[in-house]
Amino acid sequence: MARPSGSDAGVTGPRVRAAAERLFARHGYAAVSMRMIAAEVGIGAGALYHYTPDKQTLLAGLMREHLDDLLAAWGKADPGTDPVARLDAFARFHIRFHIDRPDAVFIAYMELRSLEPETFAGIEALRRRYETVPEGILRDGVAAGVMAVADVKLASMALIAMLTGVNTWYRDGGRLDRDAVEGIYADMARGMVGVERVST
Amino acid sequence: MARPSGSDAGVTGPRVRAAAERLFARHGYAAVSMRMIAAEVGIGAGALYHYTPDKQTLLAGLMREHLDDLLAAWGKADPGTDPVARLDAFARFHIRFHIDRPDAVFIAYMELRSLEPETFAGIEALRRRYETVPEGILRDGVAAGVMAVADVKLASMALIAMLTGVNTWYRDGGRLDRDAVEGIYADMARGMVGVERVST
Repeated sequence: MARPSGSDAGVTGPRVRAAAERLFARHGYAAVSMRMIAAEVGIGAGALYHYTPDKQTLLAGLMREHLDDLLAAWGKADPGTDPVARLDAFARFHIRFHIDRPDAVFIAYMELRSLEPETFAGIEALRRRYETVPEGILRDGVAAGVMAVADVKLASMALIAMLTGVNTWYRDGGRLDRDAVEGIYADMARGMVGVERVST
Repeated sequence: MARPSGSDAGVTGPRVRAAAERLFARHGYAAVSMRMIAAEVGIGAGALYHYTPDKQTLLAGLMREHLDDLLAAWGKADPGTDPVARLDAFARFHIRFHIDRPDAVFIAYMELRSLEPETFAGIEALRRRYETVPEGILRDGVAAGVMAVADVKLASMALIAMLTGVNTWYRDGGRLDRDAVEGIYADMARGMVGVERVST
């Protein structure tokens, strides 16, 4: 068969990725077949192979895109000012970015088990790069004497886990809006690293 | 076929649960068949039905057992003293309990999607009961004037997420032993809720 024309690829490619993301999050990678993905998109199983050679490529692509977007978005959100302001910005940014991408976050954490070794290494490197963001902020904060952190790596992992945890319970229209949630978590983040808290 | 004798059930029953836990964690619930579980245990697919009527019962049983054990273990670990001492004990307990059960923790978080509605409600009630543990500690701490918490529910969810996050990176034999990790996290937990920290 001929490859799909440019405009087809531009429309259907993103629909294939969105369908794969939805199905991987709902059933788990191992339980999803290329046939299920094609059916979700509404194309034939044969046509799907115009857009991706296999399921592993789709999974790796979703994870890589998620982490690339995350790093690029932080690049824009980073105020680049003092460590305490950056910590506050980071806490709010991390919550906001992840709340809108529950399926991608779920897959990024859960399906590391499903990556082939070389792919895993590439994804891990991207994730590691993101972890260096809070590490850098905390290290600068300690150096500037405005933060007290027993172990920068552990505090960074603790911070990321705490902030990502919002995804497990947050729903729009609930008791607290996004801004309130971000503010409360940003303040807990300050407390974790020995900065005086503001909102309580 | 006859039901297995008491001693068979006592040996094979736990092996069935352990095999199911391992396979659910490795492949995801939806990708695991009763046949795969039987093969992992080394019994016939027909014999497996002596031990469980279906896969959903196995999954619900694993989650219920995990949460029952968690609540019972905290009942024993709770020093029942002042809120700050209880917070410290809770942080250390939560890390220690979860580090030894990576598959159970993984399944408890990931396979909520795979529970049928009535089963989900029962599991959620147990999980909710555990969440009331830190909520009670923080509420008492605020009432006693030794903690400052903007929102007890959010702080409890943040605390649990932060502590459970240790599972994503901790390995025995790594840079820090369990006791060191527990101490550092317990201290960050103090900071999160406005208690003066001790180790930094």
